[in-house]
Amino acid sequence: MMPTGQDHRYDADGMTCIGYLAVPEGDGPFPGVLVSPAFSGLSDTERASCDRLAQQGYVALGVDYYSGGKLAADRDEAASLMAALQADRPLLARRMEAALAELRGLPQTRGRKLGAMGYCFGGKSVLDLARAGAEFEAGVSLHGVYDAPPAGSKRIKARLLICDGWDDSLCPPEVKVALAEELNAHCDDWQMLSFGHTGHAFTNPKAAASKGFGYSEAADRRSWRALSDFFADHLN
Amino acid sequence: MMPTGQDHRYDADGMTCIGYLAVPEGDGPFPGVLVSPAFSGLSDTERASCDRLAQQGYVALGVDYYSGGKLAADRDEAASLMAALQADRPLLARRMEAALAELRGLPQTRGRKLGAMGYCFGGKSVLDLARAGAEFEAGVSLHGVYDAPPAGSKRIKARLLICDGWDDSLCPPEVKVALAEELNAHCDDWQMLSFGHTGHAFTNPKAAASKGFGYSEAADRRSWRALSDFFADHLN
Repeated sequence: MMPTGQDHRYDADGMTCIGYLAVPEGDGPFPGVLVSPAFSGLSDTERASCDRLAQQGYVALGVDYYSGGKLAADRDEAASLMAALQADRPLLARRMEAALAELRGLPQTRGRKLGAMGYCFGGKSVLDLARAGAEFEAGVSLHGVYDAPPAGSKRIKARLLICDGWDDSLCPPEVKVALAEELNAHCDDWQMLSFGHTGHAFTNPKAAASKGFGYSEAADRRSWRALSDFFADHLN
Repeated sequence: MMPTGQDHRYDADGMTCIGYLAVPEGDGPFPGVLVSPAFSGLSDTERASCDRLAQQGYVALGVDYYSGGKLAADRDEAASLMAALQADRPLLARRMEAALAELRGLPQTRGRKLGAMGYCFGGKSVLDLARAGAEFEAGVSLHGVYDAPPAGSKRIKARLLICDGWDDSLCPPEVKVALAEELNAHCDDWQMLSFGHTGHAFTNPKAAASKGFGYSEAADRRSWRALSDFFADHLN
């Protein structure tokens, strides 16, 4: 699949972000979806997801939550970048809110419903956007990483779909249960879809297979269908 | 929706069962699905599910696991009937295996793939059929009730989809986790879809709403779509 989108600069909290924007063919406006990347930062993987969503009828904005278009060169750099944002959850929320505001302000989405999806730390960022009380209709986290909600979290307005691997070493059963209980307390509409024999990063064909990690063709396909149905139901 | 099927007698372990058979229009053979009832026994609710599956292209056989066409008059009688079968899990498995053999032997399913789905105790019965090592492709449990697998359980050959309400008082989080761990150990392909704010019997519009119980239009619709996609993927 050839990329159909292009780099898209926007401002977040005084920083310039280099996102990626893919727009459906035809006359808009269209519903919009934020695509929040895994911890390496916005890469061709998420650009491809934006293109795929555009082909499904959504204006898709790839989020540059690190700002400046930073893309980690390796896992160590990615971990370091993630740790810095993880240490400042209000900043992460503001970066996500800025991307959502950018998506909302585009002429191609005018007046239409908005959603958000994310991979890995991008899944947490979607959750933190929701926890910040942001106005969007539907959020999806794919093999997200979770911990306690940050201080000052608000009632969640978005519907949420959480997809995870049962074997995900970053999301063991007790973390899934804690997240479910948090959502039951603070979110009116949520679902959790767990895939057996599936580890972290199951959507990424390049993920190194090791205990608790690895690509799963079945989980990748099933989670994308669940996401597509969820957005079709709630963004149209 | 008008019923399109009819009563269908078959033998199970020397007992006559009065099931219900719904067949798609057109030329077969078609893939087949067992429909295993909630603890009251085979009722119009499950007959309607058979009809719906027939409209989706499946030969659907409603299971009479109590035999004799027994339908409990009230919840107390249902609980008593269920307790008797629960006390003899090998008998439950044989009753399910007889229904599967009946479905497999029908001219309308000849050579096609078979699945099974069930509600409540019927969900457990599908699981016990799988635990008995039965040959079928895909099983779905909707707000099933779970406990430890019976002695002598075998490797599960079927793919499984478990749909449950997070608030289901008959399936609290520790039961979900135990089931997931059992499946991870004994079943090669399984998924679990949990619905927030959803209790037991979420598919049943007549279910009395109380803590941990009650109908959910959203969970009913979402679980049926998940079931339909799952069967479409694995029975065709």
